[in-house]
Amino acid sequence: MSADPLVDELHALLGAQGVLSSAADCARYEQGWRYGSGKARCVARPRTSQECALVLACCRKHAAHVLPQGANTGLVAASTPDNSGTMVVLSTDRLTRTIEVDAASRTALVDAGVTLSQLNEAAAKHGLWFPIDLGADPAIGGMVATNTGGTRLLKYGDVRKNLLGLEVVLADGRVVSELNSLRKNNTGLDIKQLFVGTFGAFGVVTRAVVQLAPLPQQRATALVACTCGSAVVRLLVALERELGDALSAFEVMGAAALGAVFAQHSELRRPFAELPTYAVLVEASSTLPSGHLALEDVLQGQLASYLEICGEEVADVVLGDGEAFWHLRHLISESLRATGKMLAFDVSVPRSRMPEFTEAVRELLAATHAHVQLCDYGHWGDGGTHLNLVWQAADAQSLPVSWVSDLQAQIYELVVRTFAGSYSAEHGIGPHNQRFYDRFASPVVAELCDLLQVGLLGGQRLGAVRLGVPR
Amino acid sequence: MSADPLVDELHALLGAQGVLSSAADCARYEQGWRYGSGKARCVARPRTSQECALVLACCRKHAAHVLPQGANTGLVAASTPDNSGTMVVLSTDRLTRTIEVDAASRTALVDAGVTLSQLNEAAAKHGLWFPIDLGADPAIGGMVATNTGGTRLLKYGDVRKNLLGLEVVLADGRVVSELNSLRKNNTGLDIKQLFVGTFGAFGVVTRAVVQLAPLPQQRATALVACTCGSAVVRLLVALERELGDALSAFEVMGAAALGAVFAQHSELRRPFAELPTYAVLVEASSTLPSGHLALEDVLQGQLASYLEICGEEVADVVLGDGEAFWHLRHLISESLRATGKMLAFDVSVPRSRMPEFTEAVRELLAATHAHVQLCDYGHWGDGGTHLNLVWQAADAQSLPVSWVSDLQAQIYELVVRTFAGSYSAEHGIGPHNQRFYDRFASPVVAELCDLLQVGLLGGQRLGAVRLGVPR
Repeated sequence: MSADPLVDELHALLGAQGVLSSAADCARYEQGWRYGSGKARCVARPRTSQECALVLACCRKHAAHVLPQGANTGLVAASTPDNSGTMVVLSTDRLTRTIEVDAASRTALVDAGVTLSQLNEAAAKHGLWFPIDLGADPAIGGMVATNTGGTRLLKYGDVRKNLLGLEVVLADGRVVSELNSLRKNNTGLDIKQLFVGTFGAFGVVTRAVVQLAPLPQQRATALVACTCGSAVVRLLVALERELGDALSAFEVMGAAALGAVFAQHSELRRPFAELPTYAVLVEASSTLPSGHLALEDVLQGQLASYLEICGEEVADVVLGDGEAFWHLRHLISESLRATGKMLAFDVSVPRSRMPEFTEAVRELLAATHAHVQLCDYGHWGDGGTHLNLVWQAADAQSLPVSWVSDLQAQIYELVVRTFAGSYSAEHGIGPHNQRFYDRFASPVVAELCDLLQVGLLGGQRLGAVRLGVPR
Repeated sequence: MSADPLVDELHALLGAQGVLSSAADCARYEQGWRYGSGKARCVARPRTSQECALVLACCRKHAAHVLPQGANTGLVAASTPDNSGTMVVLSTDRLTRTIEVDAASRTALVDAGVTLSQLNEAAAKHGLWFPIDLGADPAIGGMVATNTGGTRLLKYGDVRKNLLGLEVVLADGRVVSELNSLRKNNTGLDIKQLFVGTFGAFGVVTRAVVQLAPLPQQRATALVACTCGSAVVRLLVALERELGDALSAFEVMGAAALGAVFAQHSELRRPFAELPTYAVLVEASSTLPSGHLALEDVLQGQLASYLEICGEEVADVVLGDGEAFWHLRHLISESLRATGKMLAFDVSVPRSRMPEFTEAVRELLAATHAHVQLCDYGHWGDGGTHLNLVWQAADAQSLPVSWVSDLQAQIYELVVRTFAGSYSAEHGIGPHNQRFYDRFASPVVAELCDLLQVGLLGGQRLGAVRLGVPR
């Protein structure tokens, strides 16, 4: 017997391993992968959708706030408990029994707690993969709830585009099971869309059917040095026109971001004699073997002819070592954090406006925050950019306490109002950016979320995010 | 002044051309493209989203049932008025001012009344297209409301997958404008999903932002003769593994369906000496020019090596003339209708189960409806099939009146309950199949639709479909 009747009841429902309540046992569920930590009331660990339904019904009876959690690898604290000690973490880490690959349908039925790497291991046996390419190794349920994107979205789309069926459990314990594996099913409201990218606010994802893609047989990679942002966009258009779906990544690294990598890692070989304004990592990939399509030659030829016609805008092209190029790209985030204090933005704007937008941010900083350096990089192929602002602690000491939040407000206003962009391109909404949701969400959307909160959940609170009208 | 105060009010709001009420003027809005016709109370033709809002507010005031209509090319009567004479048809045929292609973003902002062919004409100037490939020429708003799919869904997906932003007008005249052109925008509930494939029941689509694709530079086409359904699925898997996204269509034609085409069109050249159990139309396409990728050779090589390993299951391969092969495919529907009475099914099952499913239908017919011939064809690459049943009128005369509806009920039960399939793969829901929606819709989905009906529409009736709980 614990001191908490809810814990006792969950214990009776789920058995000894099914509920954790000691500080030591709960610790790993209370700590975010990169940011944030809190304190859980307890951790419930159902093994099946039916057990998940029991947990939800029980928590509802006790009016306990339930926080669904996958691998807790998100970056906005949407699956980390707050410090109140009142949240019941509903972990999917034992919802891992099923990974059923249907190779002929090119689909997989998976339990929510299965991780991306586990799914890909099973799919690889059939020459397939789930083509959402991320730095972390999240659970599938969390990927659905976050609608993760990643570095190859340009070619494959986000989770939403690769999701065929879904099972969720509502707050009252009802199981909504729409686990079909159909690509064509045009029979009215597609209810699963409500649970994609809503961070567990409307239900707990317990199983999903995803579409798999054939594994590429070859990749070709190049780094292209561009002298300005508009040259980057022109390069994108030119490559896309001819490569089409073979263009699988188009990642841009600003000079300051790439410079930080080399400053922190002097052992790395520099691909260019001088750091260009923008270095573009271009990747083409294909399921066709090289005997049918000489992908490296094609990419090289395209870049050579582009170099010829674009004058001085494209300064240099380095072909080859994809692994080394991606390594540079993946080192940016930690290198920037090692350089000084950092304020990270995960925003998107229409692709065509990326150069103009970046220039506007640069001007804003020069005018009012000259001590802050813009270190931008990101997925320009998708219109996404990580605008990281870096400064030395000493530089900011003489400024008012509010300068960081003023700066956030200014940049997000610019993104959303001036450039019709998004203040959260791929990380989603969590306690970290709840206040920007409250500012920018459309009133109709917020009203609709309140409607769903009452209609689907009976007012019960699920998840860390409040998607309804701010109170 | 008309005899109808609603017409007078609409006239005052929209001007002379904005509302039609004479029988002659209304006629073309009352007739479905292929099936069905009815009688409208009047036709309102707003030119802008704001005018559309005025129409809806006015109709709400008069408690008039509004039926949104695009090009009225649907196949389930979802945009054709019923015979009551009480429906106000809200036509988008004057919502055609905007087609703005942003080539660098690879997107287009379009008014709802713009047709697919008009959009593609504008996109082609930039080497782009909207890759939803249909037999009809629908309006974009109707395409969104129907979530159209088509013959190249295998490669490009349906409308939902290519829709970035949407503007709709709700029943109370509120304009919900989420017209962003972002590929990454992860900021909570994606409200536009509610209006995709819900046939105008929750709002009238007035504008959309769609993603465009680079135009292919080459196509290669083949007809493959397979001796059984499972050979068809194995062929699909083999081709997809290597061609990946280059596989742009995989259309299957059963012997009876293809036989009907040749019976009606004796002038056509037969690609095979004997009609195979299944003829598969395989199409590969690429944005790469043939200098880089010899697509015909690749396809030929793949089919030749497949022919070698698969024994007698694949009887023959004919390469080449894509236009002639597609012509055969497109003639099936009308040829079957010319052969006898026809009952059409638009269903889907998991791809891997297509042979087993088709066999089950064949057995069902043999056991209880031996006078009916199964003439199946369809998009096996997407798991979709058009099971058309054909019989001579004389054959059915001795049967009870209810045999057609009994047969429908049996086949849909088989599709949905036994094969986890869909009773409307791509045509959507309309008065033609409302009763099957009422039978098969999940109770939670229907309940949610009622919630939205009250929450978004205040109970006002929009569209020809009732998506809520059957009364």
